[in-house]
Order: sequence, then structure tokens, then C-alpha cells
Amino acid sequence: MSDIKYTSELTVTLEQQAGDDDFVVQTARVSTGLDQVAYALANTGKIKGLINYLMKKRHGSPFEHNIFTFRIEAPIFVAREAMRHRIASYNEVSGRYVQLEPKFYIYPDERPMKQQGSSAHPELVSHEDSEHHERSNARKRRVHDLAWEMYQEDIADGTALEAARDVLGVGIFTTWYVSMNARGLMNFLSLRVDAEGNAFETKPQYEIQVIAEQMSAFFAEAMPLTYAAFEKNGRVAP
Amino acid sequence: MSDIKYTSELTVTLEQQAGDDDFVVQTARVSTGLDQVAYALANTGKIKGLINYLMKKRHGSPFEHNIFTFRIEAPIFVAREAMRHRIASYNEVSGRYVQLEPKFYIYPDERPMKQQGSSAHPELVSHEDSEHHERSNARKRRVHDLAWEMYQEDIADGTALEAARDVLGVGIFTTWYVSMNARGLMNFLSLRVDAEGNAFETKPQYEIQVIAEQMSAFFAEAMPLTYAAFEKNGRVAP
Amino acid sequence: MSDIKYTSELTVTLEQQAGDDDFVVQTARVSTGLDQVAYALANTGKIKGLINYLMKKRHGSPFEHNIFTFRIEAPIFVAREAMRHRIASYNEVSGRYVQLEPKFYIYPDERPMKQQGSSAHPELVSHEDSEHHERSNARKRRVHDLAWEMYQEDIADGTALEAARDVLGVGIFTTWYVSMNARGLMNFLSLRVDAEGNAFETKPQYEIQVIAEQMSAFFAEAMPLTYAAFEKNGRVAP
Amino acid sequence: MSDIKYTSELTVTLEQQAGDDDFVVQTARVSTGLDQVAYALANTGKIKGLINYLMKKRHGSPFEHNIFTFRIEAPIFVAREAMRHRIASYNEVSGRYVQLEPKFYIYPDERPMKQQGSSAHPELVSHEDSEHHERSNARKRRVHDLAWEMYQEDIADGTALEAARDVLGVGIFTTWYVSMNARGLMNFLSLRVDAEGNAFETKPQYEIQVIAEQMSAFFAEAMPLTYAAFEKNGRVAP
Repeated sequence: MSDIKYTSELTVTLEQQAGDDDFVVQTARVSTGLDQVAYALANTGKIKGLINYLMKKRHGSPFEHNIFTFRIEAPIFVAREAMRHRIASYNEVSGRYVQLEPKFYIYPDERPMKQQGSSAHPELVSHEDSEHHERSNARKRRVHDLAWEMYQEDIADGTALEAARDVLGVGIFTTWYVSMNARGLMNFLSLRVDAEGNAFETKPQYEIQVIAEQMSAFFAEAMPLTYAAFEKNGRVAP
Repeated sequence: MSDIKYTSELTVTLEQQAGDDDFVVQTARVSTGLDQVAYALANTGKIKGLINYLMKKRHGSPFEHNIFTFRIEAPIFVAREAMRHRIASYNEVSGRYVQLEPKFYIYPDERPMKQQGSSAHPELVSHEDSEHHERSNARKRRVHDLAWEMYQEDIADGTALEAARDVLGVGIFTTWYVSMNARGLMNFLSLRVDAEGNAFETKPQYEIQVIAEQMSAFFAEAMPLTYAAFEKNGRVAP
Repeated sequence: MSDIKYTSELTVTLEQQAGDDDFVVQTARVSTGLDQVAYALANTGKIKGLINYLMKKRHGSPFEHNIFTFRIEAPIFVAREAMRHRIASYNEVSGRYVQLEPKFYIYPDERPMKQQGSSAHPELVSHEDSEHHERSNARKRRVHDLAWEMYQEDIADGTALEAARDVLGVGIFTTWYVSMNARGLMNFLSLRVDAEGNAFETKPQYEIQVIAEQMSAFFAEAMPLTYAAFEKNGRVAP
Repeated sequence: MSDIKYTSELTVTLEQQAGDDDFVVQTARVSTGLDQVAYALANTGKIKGLINYLMKKRHGSPFEHNIFTFRIEAPIFVAREAMRHRIASYNEVSGRYVQLEPKFYIYPDERPMKQQGSSAHPELVSHEDSEHHERSNARKRRVHDLAWEMYQEDIADGTALEAARDVLGVGIFTTWYVSMNARGLMNFLSLRVDAEGNAFETKPQYEIQVIAEQMSAFFAEAMPLTYAAFEKNGRVAP
């Protein structure tokens, strides 16, 4: 099984972006008839104040005139959670048309895996040594190794890709493109990042938060005033 | 592994339904100012003709004032395809909060599994004896059995449910509720059923077509005139 | 102009409804694997608690498996605001296919019409006598009367309905059907009702609030526990 | 009424655009695992062929990873039709917060206004001289002039903007921004342009087709291969 790759790395790249803080202002101002005047004359302070006002009052539509297209590599169990967000556009590797790659997720040491509390409200804790991690990851390797072997054997025996893939665990990596606007992105981040300032508590799974934080960094860079207003207002999507 | 269940059965039940052919007519007629008159006076022939006209002209909005809520049990690889349809509402068993059940999909004899043609345009063929099926299903059982054993062992070792599930193959069963209106349902059926009269060719995976045909039967029963018009017009969603 | 009708009455009727508090629970419980047990055994207190938990934690999807279809009669300026809500289905009288009815909105005495404050943040006040109302309504009647006369004359002269309607003011009545689920409805109500307990301040126009309050009453009757949880949690859509 | 402007000009400007034919290919190829290879190596013929294949097979999702933001000036009756398209983002001048401008639509000579046929299926015809146009436009001017006078008088008398606007006819101009992706745009164009090659017949109102044709030109320039495939496949949105 020398070709099998185990990794803890979840990657997000920003493939395309359009729209910025200024354009939020431009589209918001049409509502108040000021779009003919040179809104560009407004200094940064005024733009900042207007964006904060829109966020606070939850006037969300001006935050929709932009696009972020990300390319994400993560396990299927992360993709499944991510794709529950419907106000977005997706394209993903299809296991019907292409052999998946033998790349599986392995839990990094810093990832709390041990459960405490009830199953309805699980609380995860870290542990002092990595023995539990090692034991758990060893089990996963055993299954993924066998699954990959059987997947390959099945295909070699003539089984169609779409009928061979069912043995592959949801820890196998997939790749997808997703496009969303800043409003949809803020909705995603409000639910998928357990941040200090959250007005509404959320308990996302560790791995989707790793993805979300990378998306968040791209967002903060492209639209710094919008991101600051999002932070200031309890990370509630407008 | 005596508790593991292998099955080929994919089930759909209709949990809730509201709205019918008459209501399509009632909402369509508001556009032409006739909703004050007793549209109920119209005989079946007239209702049928109006519905067919709406379908043919692709006036889709009157087909949205209704709801179908299905409960579906199928493997994760089917759920993943189904949930790409965004104009619908979903609730699914969460592997973060509950232990999944040891129920795995097994390919029935009548399911063509053997591949011919290129990988971009795979064509699947049936075969005369079931030896290939048996060989393939045996591989799947081997993987699923081990995956289930490791999943159980991992949980017993204190691993959180959310971090134990990644070994489970996409052939494991899940359960979800989905609500959609007739317009969304027709879009689903137009893409997920390879029917004779399709104006646009489609090649859905076998298993999602099994689901779609069950949904189709419930639809045809609840809205027979709408379904007939859908069939008559090339199974194109209006 | 004896056939022209002036009215302040904005009407909402509930034409169709499916789904209730119990069904919120049923679809929510699939996530935790309890849907096989008789959730019906749960007493009202437990259902109430679960619904409140879902609302508080903003688990919105279980509130989507239901439908409310309203028939609304209101001026075009209200319809325009209402139809900005995209997660809903609409059918409206079409001025291309039918002569509109000569029914125009007139401002009732209790409707604050007099402006104070800046134009960006207008504050409306009531006044002690109805003289301003009378003066204002008289102006509206003058315009609507002439508009209706010209509309009729234009049609009599052979002008197509679609090219005759542009003279009609946005105060003319229209009729539409709208279907939405409880989640979409709560979003609508959170923005269109200026209620005491609102966590997020909103300043809807008087007339759309009149509509929204009628919708709210139908909602509270159909899903009392959901409505109570909505109220309890600051009228924030989950 | 010297400040009132009558015009037949409906304008669309493209304010922002991102995403092109190459990006359709890039996102489509992830499905077949080819995104790692240099798809850029593909010559134009291959890109053209792939895009045409996606369009023909109605694989619509790769056409969603792009954005077009238009600024449109047109009468309210056009805005109302345009905003029925829900898969888009809008910001419009608000008559609650700003005085509308005294700019009204006037029917150009080339616009067929005279009705033949039934009211359910109106057919509009041109006429040889412009007398009917002149008579009709004169009626409109009479109403709009009075409406504007009363609107101004009402505001001067202290009436709030939101309560003064109801006299203004739906022929008054408004301005809005709309953002949509190519898939949504093709859906819009398939319904709002009565073109030769349409697989599905459509009868849009003259004015919205004027808008749609301008949008179409921007689309064809930004994504020429996608537009060509759209044309070739009966102008059906994928």
C-alpha cells in the first residue's frame, strides 16, 4: 500500500474573487439615491461607519454583490457538512467518473478526540499523551488500507467506478470548488467557527473550523472593513 | 459481526403532503384575475388543459404552492447526490450525535455493475451469471465488516462519535427527511430518472433512480394531472 | 368615477397549511437517531423544551418541513417589499393579462404620516386632528381618479393592457399568493414587525407590518410552540 | 412641470464581472479529476467542445462560478418583472428614504402598443402612423404630471416620503443593481428574450426584452464560448 497517503492537512485556496468594501457602499447607496455622487470621495472613516451601520441593522443585500471562489481539499465528512449550505455553488470530484486518490485523513495530535459528556452534547477533550491518538489512527489505517485494496481489486475485476466506491470511508479526501458571496460566507462562518465574540454559540466539528478559518482569512484580506464590522457585531450574518 | 445487516432495499415513505392539481389552477388563475370565479366549476378537462398549458409554456410558479416531505433510507453515496439539489429542505441522521446503524448496501443481481466504454462515459452492462456480483459484494463485506469492528472498538476506546465515523464507507445507510415542492420535485425527477420520454438525456446512478421512482409514484398519486402533463412535455421541469 | 373604491383594508387569508410543532420534533429527532422511538410519547413539556432549544441554538432546518400559503390583497408598494423575500413562492395578478381593479389604498387616521427627523432616518408621528390626512388623501384621490380615467380611456382606444398600466400608482391594490415555510416566515416577521422583544431593531413600513401581523396570527395558531419559542428568543429567525 | 423628464431610454451598465469560459472548464474538470493537469494546454476547440457538451447535457453547476453585476434604469413595471427572478441579488432605490426623480417612461414609436386577440393571449401590432402613440402618450403625460405635482405638494405639506409615493405610476423610473451568475443569467435570458432559436417559446414584455438584450450583449462579450453554446442549444438554461 505504498501509494496510500495519510495526512492531517486541510487546504483552502482562493481561486477567484471580485467585489470589495467600496462596492458594498456603492450598492447600498443606490437605496438612498446617493450613487450619483462620488461616493469615492467619502473617506475611509465614512465607509467604515456605513458598513458597520449596515451590519448592525442587518441590511444584508449590499453584501451580496461580490464573489469568493474557493478550492478545498478535505475529507468527505467535511464536504458533507459544507455542502449543506445552499446559498452557494459547488463542483466536486465525482467518484462516478474518476478513480479517487488514495489520500486519507489522519487526526493530528492537537485535535481533541476523546469524548466526555452525553452523546447528545458531547464534549471533546485533549489528552496528555498521544497513545489514544495512535491507537485510534492505527484502526483507521487498517480500515482505509483494506478499503483501498478492495477498491483497486474491484476495479481491476471490471466493477464500475460508481459501484466500487462504496467501501471507501468518509475520511477519504475529496476536492471541490465553492462560490459564495460575502453574505453567504458570513452565514457559513457564523456557524462553522467557534469564536470568542460569537453572539450565537456554535459547536462546529474541528475539521470544518480549520477550513472555515482559512476562508475567513481570505475574506478579511479582501474586505477588511466588512470583516471588521462582522467581528464587531457578534459575528452574526446580516 | 452478527449484528451487521446487508441489504439492497432503498426505501422512501411519504410523510407529509399538501397541495393538489386544483391548487395549481387556483394560484395560476390569480394571474388572469379569475380566482374570484368558481374555478371549481371547471370540469376536469379544463383543469387538465390549463395544467398542460402551464407546463408546456414553462410557467413554473403555480407548481410551487405545495409540499412533499419524504423520509428516505439509502446509502451515503446516494444522499450525497440527492442533497446537491438546493431548492429543498433537509434533515439527516448526524454521525456526530448518534452511533450509525450497522446497515450496509449490497448490490442486487439486477444492478448492472460491470463497466464498458471509457471512464468519462462509462456504460454499465448486466452479466449472465452472478459470479462477478458475488466477488464484488464479498470484497465490500470484508471492508464493511472490518470498518464496523474498528468503529465499535474506537468508540469503546473513548473516541468521540464524530472522530470515529471516518472509517465507515459511503455504502453505509443513512436516513433523511426532505421537503420540496412539485416544481423542485420535477427538476429532481428530470435529472434522476432515465425515462423513455425524456426531452433531455440523463444518466443517473442506478440507486438514486430507485429512490426517484418511488418519489415519482407518490407524486403521480397526489397530483395526477400535473404528473401527466410532466410526462407529456418531455419530463422537463417547468 | 363611481366604480372606484378607496380602502384602508389590507387582507391576508390562510389558504393552505401543513406541518406542525410535532413535525418539527419528528424531523429534528432524525438527527439524533430517535425518530424510531415514539416521539409522540414525549409530553408537551418535552416538545416545548426541544423546540426552544432548536430556536435558541439556531438549528433552523427542522422548521422548514411545513408550508403556509397566504392570499394577500394590498397595494403594489407593499407587494414590492414583500416580494424581495426570495425564499418563497409567488403568484400575482398580472397587469399584462387582466385589467386591474379600481381599488386604491387610502391612509387610515391611525397611520402616522407626518415626517420628522432626517430623510435617511425618518420618524413618523401622529397628529391630533385629521386635517393633514384629509389633505393628503385628497391629493391621492385626485391622482388615482385621473389615472383610472386615463387607463380606461387608453384601453378603449385599443392600447394593450401591458402598455396602459404604467399610469397606475403604486397605491393600487394587487393580489398575490405566497407560500413559505416557518423558517422563511420567521425571517419575514423578524424584519417586518417592529415588536417589543426584537433582538434586532427593525423599522418596517406601517402597511407591511399590518400584513405581517395577520400572517403572524395564523402562524401562532398553527405552530403555537414554535411561535412561543420565536418570541422567547428575540424574534430572530433560526 | 419643467423638471419632469420623459424618456424611452432603458439603460444597463455592467458594473462588475468576474469569471470566464476558462473558469467554466476549470471547475467542470474537477469532476473528472483533470484539474491538476494543465487544462490551459487545451486549445480553444477543446474548450468550446467541452462547454457545448456541458450545455447540451445540462450540467449547469460549472456555469455558476462567476458574477455579473448590472446597474439598470427602467420603469417600476420592468423592475417588478425582473425581481421575480430569485436566484440573484438586488439593491434598488428606496422611495422610503429618498425622493424619486421625476423621470417617466414614454413609449417609443417602434414599440407595438395596439392590442389584437383575446386578453388572455394578447397580440400586439404596430401601426402605420403615430397618432395612437401620441394619443396614448398624451394620456400618460397628463397623469404623470399631476402625480408628480401632488407628490411634491404632499411632501411640502409634511407627508413622509413613504406615504407620498403611492400616487406615482409604475411608469416612473427606478434604479437597481443586480448580481447573478451565468446560469441565472441564462435562465433570465431564456424567458425574457423572444429569440429565433428559442427551444421554448416565450413572450416577454417589450421593455424587459430591451433590458435583457443589453445584458445579453455584456454576457456574450465576457463569455463568448458559453454564449455561443447557449445559442446553439436552443437558449435553454442548463
